[in-house]
Amino acid sequence: MKLYESIADTLRERIEQGFYKVGDKSPSVRILSAERKVSLATAQQALWLLEQQQYVEVKAKSGFYVKAPQSATSIPQISRLTQYPLEVSQWDEVLALLSCREQPNILNLGRGLCDVTVPTLKPLMRLLSDNIKSRGQQLLAYDSLPGQLALRDQIARLGIVSGTQIQAQDLIITTGCQEALSISIQAVTKPGDVVAIESPCFYGVMQILNAHGLKALEIPTHPTHGMSLEALEMALDQWPIRAIMAIPAFNNPLGSCMPDANKQRLLQLAQHYDVPIIEDDIYGELAYKQPRPRTIQSFDQEGRVILCSSFTKTVAVGLRVGWIVPGRYRNRILHLKYVGTASAVSMTQLAIADFIEQGYFERHLRKVRQQYQMGRDVAIRLIKESFPDGTRISFPEGGFIIWVELPHGFDAVQLDKRMMQHHIKITSGSVFSASGKYRNCIRINYTRAALDEKIQAAIQLVGKEAQQLMNSF
Amino acid sequence: MKLYESIADTLRERIEQGFYKVGDKSPSVRILSAERKVSLATAQQALWLLEQQQYVEVKAKSGFYVKAPQSATSIPQISRLTQYPLEVSQWDEVLALLSCREQPNILNLGRGLCDVTVPTLKPLMRLLSDNIKSRGQQLLAYDSLPGQLALRDQIARLGIVSGTQIQAQDLIITTGCQEALSISIQAVTKPGDVVAIESPCFYGVMQILNAHGLKALEIPTHPTHGMSLEALEMALDQWPIRAIMAIPAFNNPLGSCMPDANKQRLLQLAQHYDVPIIEDDIYGELAYKQPRPRTIQSFDQEGRVILCSSFTKTVAVGLRVGWIVPGRYRNRILHLKYVGTASAVSMTQLAIADFIEQGYFERHLRKVRQQYQMGRDVAIRLIKESFPDGTRISFPEGGFIIWVELPHGFDAVQLDKRMMQHHIKITSGSVFSASGKYRNCIRINYTRAALDEKIQAAIQLVGKEAQQLMNSF
Repeated sequence: MKLYESIADTLRERIEQGFYKVGDKSPSVRILSAERKVSLATAQQALWLLEQQQYVEVKAKSGFYVKAPQSATSIPQISRLTQYPLEVSQWDEVLALLSCREQPNILNLGRGLCDVTVPTLKPLMRLLSDNIKSRGQQLLAYDSLPGQLALRDQIARLGIVSGTQIQAQDLIITTGCQEALSISIQAVTKPGDVVAIESPCFYGVMQILNAHGLKALEIPTHPTHGMSLEALEMALDQWPIRAIMAIPAFNNPLGSCMPDANKQRLLQLAQHYDVPIIEDDIYGELAYKQPRPRTIQSFDQEGRVILCSSFTKTVAVGLRVGWIVPGRYRNRILHLKYVGTASAVSMTQLAIADFIEQGYFERHLRKVRQQYQMGRDVAIRLIKESFPDGTRISFPEGGFIIWVELPHGFDAVQLDKRMMQHHIKITSGSVFSASGKYRNCIRINYTRAALDEKIQAAIQLVGKEAQQLMNSF
Repeated sequence: MKLYESIADTLRERIEQGFYKVGDKSPSVRILSAERKVSLATAQQALWLLEQQQYVEVKAKSGFYVKAPQSATSIPQISRLTQYPLEVSQWDEVLALLSCREQPNILNLGRGLCDVTVPTLKPLMRLLSDNIKSRGQQLLAYDSLPGQLALRDQIARLGIVSGTQIQAQDLIITTGCQEALSISIQAVTKPGDVVAIESPCFYGVMQILNAHGLKALEIPTHPTHGMSLEALEMALDQWPIRAIMAIPAFNNPLGSCMPDANKQRLLQLAQHYDVPIIEDDIYGELAYKQPRPRTIQSFDQEGRVILCSSFTKTVAVGLRVGWIVPGRYRNRILHLKYVGTASAVSMTQLAIADFIEQGYFERHLRKVRQQYQMGRDVAIRLIKESFPDGTRISFPEGGFIIWVELPHGFDAVQLDKRMMQHHIKITSGSVFSASGKYRNCIRINYTRAALDEKIQAAIQLVGKEAQQLMNSF
């Protein structure tokens, strides 16, 4: 990262964290130059970059001023810094969420699953069936410990787009991304250790920390740019952090996407403090704009980044096929895979390998990216129309999850109870924090929001009930 | 357990552990009565029981004498007590074993897998394919956290034979038995804890201990009767043991089967010292004599026994379908399943449920039990003919694994290297111990020993090479 980029980044984070508010004058070229001990030209370049990025605007003969965010709706605010690493609890809440799977009469608006009813998945079912016929009882034998070679070959080829240059032997197949994350985290920590996570953070990761006696240090994460690197640096300085866990591409639940410059800076921080990064790229292929974002791993020259991903969000959760690019932690991760599950199911791996090789995967991705982007726009419109004033909405450029922040003091747990009377399940933001944050937030899945009137009506009903709850304050 | 049974058990263990040798006079009724402070009648009853069990014989007007073991060949000796809990290593050796899966030109004589080429599995492939057609993309959705209800129902029905009286809601499906064992062990321990295991012990269990920083206390285990309860009691008295892990039915690698009286006594010990038992029943259904042995769990009234099993050894390893009866540890085990893999593959679960329900499973079991019993007899004959004098062989009454003990000082690791030159892989006994035992032992899989001349020739070749290695001492 160049010097002026780093200066611009610092300023941008201060703006995002509210040190400078919309309309405030930004530090001048002269002040910036003095403060950072750089030339006037470098300071000028930093401010130009921020102008380009729509964070500041020039007022003639006056200087640079902080600009209002570009999104038509206000995006959620970045959370405040958590002062201490915390133990995670909330298993009961997560279990209640998961138990919805067993209740088919409940419309689950908050789930983190992709649409598995799309017609572009039909060829996958055929390939599964074909494979069973052609390979027969071969499929009953043990898979090799790292997983099916045919699938690893295909995943390695896909990596090229994200900049992840790997070969089949650099990959380990897992039982879904959850196994990938679980054994990656275990591979680099021991009980009592501190792990830096995004905040809000996917509860599946937080529950891994809970189960293995690890502490979560929540790093404020911006709805568009991802983890605050300024906050992370402070945390690395202060705490013995043993791993940094991030979803840089369309993070769950914010949908934020970390700019490449930040990925490089994150990697530099990890190098400086000698900490491994666990990168979850599960939503990366669902970028609405192509080419998809690069992975942090693609900048890594030393095997420090453990890249985890899966077909759970791109194809189907029920296949349980994930993978890890384990870098320098290969032996320990292979060991943890062996002791945890020994091996994965072969028949699903082979069908996906064929699905990719025969071009169906690319076709499917094109279709669902479109469907999800439309879904996002419909969901945002419905939320704007029906939710209480002051509601803020994330604006993801990939994936299928939206983060809705209701006014301060709103109780989404209460709203959840109300919605259950309508047989609608929402996901309260409280499960995404170990420090009691986000109780005024909810996560909404918009995979079929553009297609299904029931979903649309459900979103509107959530808004209406939220409004009533507000009025009853 | 009645008093006289408990006295008989103690004596039997002393005989098995060599305190009394073949031909020795056993303690008289009078001495036994004085030593154990019981009536003469009770002491008499204990000796009669031992006579019935073929451990002692009566010589007229002289008393009871220790009898030679019934098996035509000498069975392996029970190992000596290990004095301390030990950390487990040997991952490199296990990894080398597992890597054989990727080398199809190697004949793996030592593997722990069932025969997946049998024609009685054909209906399973058809059911897999039928399910995909009839259920279609439904199969791509998330499984419920405890697993498919249809399969849990079938497993609960099967339990009746083993005395395990459960219902679907008492079961959690896992990704193979390895996940079942891994999360069960984690559920009741924390790093640094001591776990009592059988010796020799399945290396997959030992590697779980290794990965999670647990220490193994190896309890001598008898080739016919299983874990020495006398040794276990001493260990429980001396060490803060947090879990007892056992394979009571046709243990891997010894093939031993714990008598019901011992199961009850084991449970009493666990109660007395308040320790959970993790019971691996993976080979239970492969008993050559029916009805199959009862589980330890079937005697348990308080949810202390965590029963783990799977279709890995009875149907096929590649399906990765196992289960747990978690007893009182349900919540923690469900949590560990969630954080470890989130859920299992549905389509394999549903096909197995149909396979059982439609009667194919029972038919398949009848067929393979026969095949394996014949395999055992062929393997024993070949080993007796071709292995060096002084070789001892286990005599399993179920499963498909035989344990061969070569004379003291023999080096099976060396033999393994020699055999690899013939593209034959054996499993050296050393991976079954954390304390360096069993380097003179090997594990042989006899699933197809009665059917396949290549296997027969390979066993003979192992014997020949072992003989040469002995001669070169």
